[in-house]
Amino acid sequence: MTRPGDLTPMLKPRSIVFVGASDRSTWSSTAYGNLKALGFTGKIHLVSRGGGMAHGQQTLTSCTMIGEPVDVALVMVPVDAVLDILGDIGAAGIGHAVILAGGFAELGGDGARLQDEVLATARRLGIALLGPNCLGFINFNAQVACWTGSMRTPPLAGAIGIVSQSGAVANFMAHFAHQHSVGLSCLVSTGNEPSVDLASVMNYLVDDPDTRVIALFAESVRDPAGFKVTARRALERGKPIVVLKIGRSEITAKAAQSHTGAVVGDDKVFDGVCQQLGLIRVDSIEEMIFTADLMAKVGPLQGSGVGVVSFSGGMCELAADAAHADGVSIPALASDTLGALRAVLPPIATPGNPLDVTGIAVAKPELFEQSLSVLAKDPGVSLLACIFDVPTGASGDWSPTYLAGVNSIGRYMKNSAIPSIMFSNTAKVVSDRSRELIAQAGVSYVPAGTRLGMRAICHAMAWSAKYRRVRPQARSRPAPAPPSPLPRSERQALEYLAGFGVPVIPSVLARSEQEALAAAALMEGSLALKIASPDIAHKSDVGGVLLNVLGTEALTQGFRQIMASAKAAMTHARLEGVLVSPMRREGVELFVGVRLDPQWGHVIAVGLGGVWIEALQDVSLRLLPVTPEDVTEMLVGLRGAKLLGGFRSAPPVDIPALALVVACIGDAALGLGPTLDTLEVNPLLAAAHRIEALDALASYKDCAP
Amino acid sequence: MTRPGDLTPMLKPRSIVFVGASDRSTWSSTAYGNLKALGFTGKIHLVSRGGGMAHGQQTLTSCTMIGEPVDVALVMVPVDAVLDILGDIGAAGIGHAVILAGGFAELGGDGARLQDEVLATARRLGIALLGPNCLGFINFNAQVACWTGSMRTPPLAGAIGIVSQSGAVANFMAHFAHQHSVGLSCLVSTGNEPSVDLASVMNYLVDDPDTRVIALFAESVRDPAGFKVTARRALERGKPIVVLKIGRSEITAKAAQSHTGAVVGDDKVFDGVCQQLGLIRVDSIEEMIFTADLMAKVGPLQGSGVGVVSFSGGMCELAADAAHADGVSIPALASDTLGALRAVLPPIATPGNPLDVTGIAVAKPELFEQSLSVLAKDPGVSLLACIFDVPTGASGDWSPTYLAGVNSIGRYMKNSAIPSIMFSNTAKVVSDRSRELIAQAGVSYVPAGTRLGMRAICHAMAWSAKYRRVRPQARSRPAPAPPSPLPRSERQALEYLAGFGVPVIPSVLARSEQEALAAAALMEGSLALKIASPDIAHKSDVGGVLLNVLGTEALTQGFRQIMASAKAAMTHARLEGVLVSPMRREGVELFVGVRLDPQWGHVIAVGLGGVWIEALQDVSLRLLPVTPEDVTEMLVGLRGAKLLGGFRSAPPVDIPALALVVACIGDAALGLGPTLDTLEVNPLLAAAHRIEALDALASYKDCAP
Repeated sequence: MTRPGDLTPMLKPRSIVFVGASDRSTWSSTAYGNLKALGFTGKIHLVSRGGGMAHGQQTLTSCTMIGEPVDVALVMVPVDAVLDILGDIGAAGIGHAVILAGGFAELGGDGARLQDEVLATARRLGIALLGPNCLGFINFNAQVACWTGSMRTPPLAGAIGIVSQSGAVANFMAHFAHQHSVGLSCLVSTGNEPSVDLASVMNYLVDDPDTRVIALFAESVRDPAGFKVTARRALERGKPIVVLKIGRSEITAKAAQSHTGAVVGDDKVFDGVCQQLGLIRVDSIEEMIFTADLMAKVGPLQGSGVGVVSFSGGMCELAADAAHADGVSIPALASDTLGALRAVLPPIATPGNPLDVTGIAVAKPELFEQSLSVLAKDPGVSLLACIFDVPTGASGDWSPTYLAGVNSIGRYMKNSAIPSIMFSNTAKVVSDRSRELIAQAGVSYVPAGTRLGMRAICHAMAWSAKYRRVRPQARSRPAPAPPSPLPRSERQALEYLAGFGVPVIPSVLARSEQEALAAAALMEGSLALKIASPDIAHKSDVGGVLLNVLGTEALTQGFRQIMASAKAAMTHARLEGVLVSPMRREGVELFVGVRLDPQWGHVIAVGLGGVWIEALQDVSLRLLPVTPEDVTEMLVGLRGAKLLGGFRSAPPVDIPALALVVACIGDAALGLGPTLDTLEVNPLLAAAHRIEALDALASYKDCAP
Repeated sequence: MTRPGDLTPMLKPRSIVFVGASDRSTWSSTAYGNLKALGFTGKIHLVSRGGGMAHGQQTLTSCTMIGEPVDVALVMVPVDAVLDILGDIGAAGIGHAVILAGGFAELGGDGARLQDEVLATARRLGIALLGPNCLGFINFNAQVACWTGSMRTPPLAGAIGIVSQSGAVANFMAHFAHQHSVGLSCLVSTGNEPSVDLASVMNYLVDDPDTRVIALFAESVRDPAGFKVTARRALERGKPIVVLKIGRSEITAKAAQSHTGAVVGDDKVFDGVCQQLGLIRVDSIEEMIFTADLMAKVGPLQGSGVGVVSFSGGMCELAADAAHADGVSIPALASDTLGALRAVLPPIATPGNPLDVTGIAVAKPELFEQSLSVLAKDPGVSLLACIFDVPTGASGDWSPTYLAGVNSIGRYMKNSAIPSIMFSNTAKVVSDRSRELIAQAGVSYVPAGTRLGMRAICHAMAWSAKYRRVRPQARSRPAPAPPSPLPRSERQALEYLAGFGVPVIPSVLARSEQEALAAAALMEGSLALKIASPDIAHKSDVGGVLLNVLGTEALTQGFRQIMASAKAAMTHARLEGVLVSPMRREGVELFVGVRLDPQWGHVIAVGLGGVWIEALQDVSLRLLPVTPEDVTEMLVGLRGAKLLGGFRSAPPVDIPALALVVACIGDAALGLGPTLDTLEVNPLLAAAHRIEALDALASYKDCAP
């Protein structure tokens, strides 16, 4: 995919031409009205094939008649006029166009062919396209828009840049943000994305100084490589990305395919991508907007302890339960803090965290300021969350109690030494009047309610931890050529892995009973015997595995049995002999698998073996390469992770050692080159500090197994 | 706990006396204002020790001076005046009092003693108390309140009855409901609950014709028996109960104890209670209000398939993913339905479920009515959910598009043959103007947004399934006397269980090597040997267990070894001999345990054995007795449930047979009487149709093990 160049002229234009301007067109009228509502002060040119007046202004019949440079054309003509119009736009030297019309690739067939033609023409003429099949964009801070959706008023400029593949969803996100007075920097609907896509706009927003948080609605990622690079860059720059991506259900995967022609992709892989790149994946528009709002307000956090204050014991408890559900830490306070709290709290209050300042705060609002100031000094608290509502002025809620409370909290916030937020008891509207009070009192207010407020804090904490750890990525070295021949069989695969520092179980290839006996003499205890053949992938299926073999007689008999079974089952298989290894009994079995994802490339999966992976699909995925740190995160995220911590009498697994081994397996897989289809180490046995690959197998694309 | 009598005079009073009435009292002024705002037409008497005027009305100095019957006294005097005032109220023959003051049991010590005194006095005088330490109540339909909290205006009467142990949380719930125009029947704050508690008010609401759904905020359940009976009655009457209960985190458990003196109880047990009694447990006020609103609007549902309609493909996908996350079924449509949809949809739309009628609906709003009417006839669809927003009139959102859409959906709803709901794209405010439009258009609107809307549907579906299955409970037979002596040892416990129809593994008590050999002769394959002693609970710990014993020599040696080990480890234990049983290898190990919960009585736990229960605490709990149906629900709810379905080559477990056995274990436990502390069957082995208890143990309260 060729990435379009700098999008500033498109998304922050100083001059715009409406192509297809007309008073009779809802698109044209809405877009014109939106520009006026934003207070756009640049030039608006109008072009209409038929000429005449529109929006009280004279139209021209061609872009070439404008006679001065124009940054972007808003193309509002029907689908079958788009190709022609591009010629006119190109002739006028305009480098950016927003195309609203639908009827292209989303319909498949002829529509897709037409889109290809439009794209080819645009490329030839050097025009970058937003859309087709989109609603355009709004740049709130620059007070400019090519937006044919509805727009809430007054427009609220802020720090969140929204990019959405669906125009309607972009609208709903913006309206929800407006209802809660969450200001946006940009709102961009990307539509079919033949030219400007999600990743291009993300890329623009990473560099946009007005945007502190990026929020995405995605049906599919059309340019995974660009997405990855941009997401990584955003993390390094400390700009969080909150993403709402459909595709968790089968229905969605099918629906998206039918209505945008987009491949939704493997949702579990996308989850892995998010975790790896620090993207914050959310489940709803509400969670997205409130999380983005919180993160824009608090910025990156240090530490992980949250102090919570409310004047209702019930809300304190709800907050604590919400924190517990999301794994947010509400630490116990230091004894100094408790002492200092006792000095400011009424006798009926119990100092603690969460802190219930009690209903006495209604009569004594200064309790908020005083107790927040004390909590802010606690060494374990790195974020303060005060639960309190800002009234709206509707339904008789504008009471002195609320005003006094908000002002008291504001007085603390103006001087607060640590990041602090006030969130509402329940998700709450913010009216114009609320907004004035918020500004005057100086509170940093996220009207998310306790449940989603705590969820947002959970996301902010996780993202901040990731951000603190991020290091500029080392330039990837040119990959050495894959080995030739490529390893395939168990023996070859294990030997190859050993070369990458993966500990593998000792094993000796015995081509005869005598060699088997000699091998056994070097090993203690029972043995495992397995057929060695480059042609046999599933050894158990051909009777090619014997476990717990003890004693000379059993060994020689076992050797003969395995060779005979394999021979009988696969007449033409090349039999190299039998692999003799010591039996391992202790330890946790893990599965480590690498596979080639059609969208994202090589993906590594780690899970506990046996029922965990087979019956419960309890695996964690990441894109390769992975660092040992990535792997640790994967292991901790497994549902069965407790088993690694030392179950029953087993000693705990050495997680750093295990993570290093898994990362080495990942590197080894990359070393096998782009044709690698799957590399499985199963099981990887982890017994305290001894991590050992017991079996491995590799397969390649377009190659016989 | 003595349950107070009929609460109608208290919660639906025709006449009220304010005790402590004064213009200077915020309580008095607020409560008086609330009564006026509701349009209360009954008598309000004012009593003030000092006499004079209040709220523009003459006060009396004693309740006894009123001279006519009064239903309820709203007591607004300080904590130390409450006892005296009760005397006056009693003397006036008033049977109900609402006590606002705090300073009682929630402070412990002297406060608790004072509360006991107040309760004793009230009982003696025949006065039922709401509070102390509460905000009172509002009865919206009866237009009456004794409420000292703020109240949003205009008051919105509706079908949801809220009961809350926290006054502040009651306030927040009511305000959130008001913001979304969710009407309430009652709002009751119960406070410290020495007299009227959660269960009493629930009981009132079950019979209240104005209340269709009950919503609870609970810190603790003070009367579990009453709660259970009332919850059961509500289910039988088809009145859903939505409950938000704190206690999921340790912090909460401690905090609640400190601030109300209430025992939060074992949260997992409460989860089990909810599942058993069909209570809908939610995690936030938002989820509570929207769920209650949906259920009040759709009533009990038949079937489980949901049809979803939107004019945005993106929202359809978000709805499908939300449904998937909550296990809501969005079934594929019948071919007749697809055909009929094709006839009404524009060519660019694809018939399906969820159904994207496309943005063309903006120009052709009748698409909503037409496609909803078609979907309503699909045999797999039992609830229709149309996603669309009702404008508010604020921020320029009152567009003809929205009005036309709402009206089109309303036209369908007025004639709809199946339960249907419209929910908003995101959680959305409902203004006075919205409310008018909703009424005029005739839409049934839940402004929950797609995510919480789908969650509400999930709850409604689960509750409806439970309601469809509920049968009036058989009167419990008087329990027969527990056996004497009570079974304790493995042998006794297994024999006792067998008497209740629980299949137990064959075993023979061998008192000598000869008897062991004779027993072995009756069994096939390897044997299990276990010490038999009424004094030894943990047999493995004393070397009292040997598994996989094969052959005469091993058997006699094993017998001697076990007897010697046990003797050496516990010199004074009575050794009856050795239990000889066949070894079982195949099957899934389960754990079935009954224990006495201090709050709820005997609770049964079922889980998969081994790591599942020990490392993952994957258990499901219910109160005894349980039906096989209850147990099936428990088993299906286990995270490891897949293992019962036939993992690898194992045949699937016969779930009905297993459920019956577990229910029998429950009955057997109840047969052991109230002193039973724990009864454990571990493992209960389930191999296809063969379900067998392999080991069991019982212990009792106040008894040596």
